[in-house]
Amino acid sequence: MASFDADFRETLTTLFAWRRDVRRFRTDPVDETLLQRCLDLAAFSPSVGNSQPWRFVRVSDADRRAAVIASFERCNAAAAEAYQAEQREAYVRLKLAGLREAPVHLAVFCDEATVTGHGLGRATMPEMLRYSVVTAVQTFWLAARAHGLGVGWVSILEPGAVCKTLDVPCAWSLVAYLCVGFPVEEHEDPELVRHGWQQRLASGMTLIER
Amino acid sequence: MASFDADFRETLTTLFAWRRDVRRFRTDPVDETLLQRCLDLAAFSPSVGNSQPWRFVRVSDADRRAAVIASFERCNAAAAEAYQAEQREAYVRLKLAGLREAPVHLAVFCDEATVTGHGLGRATMPEMLRYSVVTAVQTFWLAARAHGLGVGWVSILEPGAVCKTLDVPCAWSLVAYLCVGFPVEEHEDPELVRHGWQQRLASGMTLIER
Repeated sequence: MASFDADFRETLTTLFAWRRDVRRFRTDPVDETLLQRCLDLAAFSPSVGNSQPWRFVRVSDADRRAAVIASFERCNAAAAEAYQAEQREAYVRLKLAGLREAPVHLAVFCDEATVTGHGLGRATMPEMLRYSVVTAVQTFWLAARAHGLGVGWVSILEPGAVCKTLDVPCAWSLVAYLCVGFPVEEHEDPELVRHGWQQRLASGMTLIER
Repeated sequence: MASFDADFRETLTTLFAWRRDVRRFRTDPVDETLLQRCLDLAAFSPSVGNSQPWRFVRVSDADRRAAVIASFERCNAAAAEAYQAEQREAYVRLKLAGLREAPVHLAVFCDEATVTGHGLGRATMPEMLRYSVVTAVQTFWLAARAHGLGVGWVSILEPGAVCKTLDVPCAWSLVAYLCVGFPVEEHEDPELVRHGWQQRLASGMTLIER
């Protein structure tokens, strides 16, 4: 039987607190064994009906990476336009993705057509399939951080354009696009807190009673 | 700067592998401080634009718990009906929730109307708000396990009925319903593997190249 001691729990707390969304990457390559190790740990994630619907795609082709970056730039420009005055100025000063520098791009899809799991647990909440993929992203993120890697989740993208660019089956939906690499700098606070966009709401979790 | 050594990574691997969805709970109460500690750790989860849209609701009222159990039983009966012959027999033999025994029920919602984060990162992928809540569920799950608690995620429910039963704002959507308590037994393999419903697809993660 597994047990976890106080020292482990303390370091786990540090891992949760230091996980951070990284947008500033060194360009040095990530060792294949290290990347695969973190991916293998993500495969321990929970999934509805044990459906394991996660599909991890590494994007190495230069043209495909350029198309993803172009999608980000279109979306980011449109997002900036939607803000007014000072908020727009604050938005454009933020660095929201490390797509150009990150040595590894991972597009993470949900295979909506999978029969694995035989539909168990998703009749009334079909979104559980995509949520299972999200748990794998969070597990990968924590595993990567524990191995010294940084991860940034980019959502300022057109999912349809990314699916087309990567030529994946049409039943796959894009859940996450991750930049992976070694961080340029380490911070205890999130970048959006540090640059004044959005503070933490509270130091802990408010439990609501019913 | 945080760093993580080989011993920590080995125990983290054990934590990922032993996390498990627990459906068999002891009825002894969970200490308040312990529960709050695990919730506070979940508050370190990533969220789009730092929107922190997670809303954790503890369901203690007996009538409300009974209504949730009734929803589960309706959905579970309907799900069984949808399978044929031997698969139906296999389905009805599975224990899919520990709602009656688990001392703590947590309903986890996404506040779709939150202005925290000022919409950043979710113009083209509005589902990012709900995905942020899912990362908090997975973080809570890992934290709970590291503290000896078990967690089971119940998705065989009618989300609308649960929202109504719990009288939450109509802009909150149900992401997860969690049973929390001490496990009756410990297993290295998932319950759905042990009972022959669905095996693991592979021992690790297959990386697809583009």
